[in-house]
Amino acid sequence: MKQALLEAHKAGERGEVPVGAVVVCKDRIIARAHNLTETLTDVTAHAEMQAITAAAATLGGKYLNECTLYVTVEPCVMCAGAIAWAQMGRLVFGAEDEKRGYQRYASQALHPKTQVVKGILADECAALMKEFFAAKRK
Amino acid sequence: MKQALLEAHKAGERGEVPVGAVVVCKDRIIARAHNLTETLTDVTAHAEMQAITAAAATLGGKYLNECTLYVTVEPCVMCAGAIAWAQMGRLVFGAEDEKRGYQRYASQALHPKTQVVKGILADECAALMKEFFAAKRK
Repeated sequence: MKQALLEAHKAGERGEVPVGAVVVCKDRIIARAHNLTETLTDVTAHAEMQAITAAAATLGGKYLNECTLYVTVEPCVMCAGAIAWAQMGRLVFGAEDEKRGYQRYASQALHPKTQVVKGILADECAALMKEFFAAKRK
Repeated sequence: MKQALLEAHKAGERGEVPVGAVVVCKDRIIARAHNLTETLTDVTAHAEMQAITAAAATLGGKYLNECTLYVTVEPCVMCAGAIAWAQMGRLVFGAEDEKRGYQRYASQALHPKTQVVKGILADECAALMKEFFAAKRK
């Protein structure tokens, strides 16, 4: 999750909502990404989406059932759907997102075999988001 | 929707699940795409996702509130999430997808302002899917 936080910082430095993600497979980071929706003018360019695409490219297979996705903030509905299609082995996220998180809109969206771990470094992950939006409002 | 069906046929010819999508803005098709998940080894490469990315690139803006997305099959949760982020003006789909469609898992996932029209050329859209999966099972 510390590596995902590093990615989130990179996003924030570019003026992007600071969310970062990494995919780990057999103790190795095989993909890292941060939110690039503004830079790419593309709502689909969330950190998780890019990390899933990159991880599949690295492994040469669509399914990530032996992988763990670490992401600093609870995935949205779109990303939860992608995590389901990828049959992700484990999802670990930091801060909850009550407004846009998948748990509110699509609590059954994930693949039933995906293990979910919440709240890892949640305070740091949430603080980064809060700082970003506070600075935006200034 | 006929143009989306043409795209769906292209997908089927490549051995992809036959789903096609087009984005129309001010009576002009600004993006067309078909499912490429197998070709690209990428679960995120659904027709709708690619069409949204392409449409935003054409317009130079992330939001597609003046656009209509035509897609041959009811979007999944992931695509519904992307349609929401894009604030799509209108979503028109053909066949319903009881198993994977967003209505089952995330009925509130779309942006509240997105108009939804269902069942356009539904029989043709569904027939294409049925033929594809029947051929797969042979």
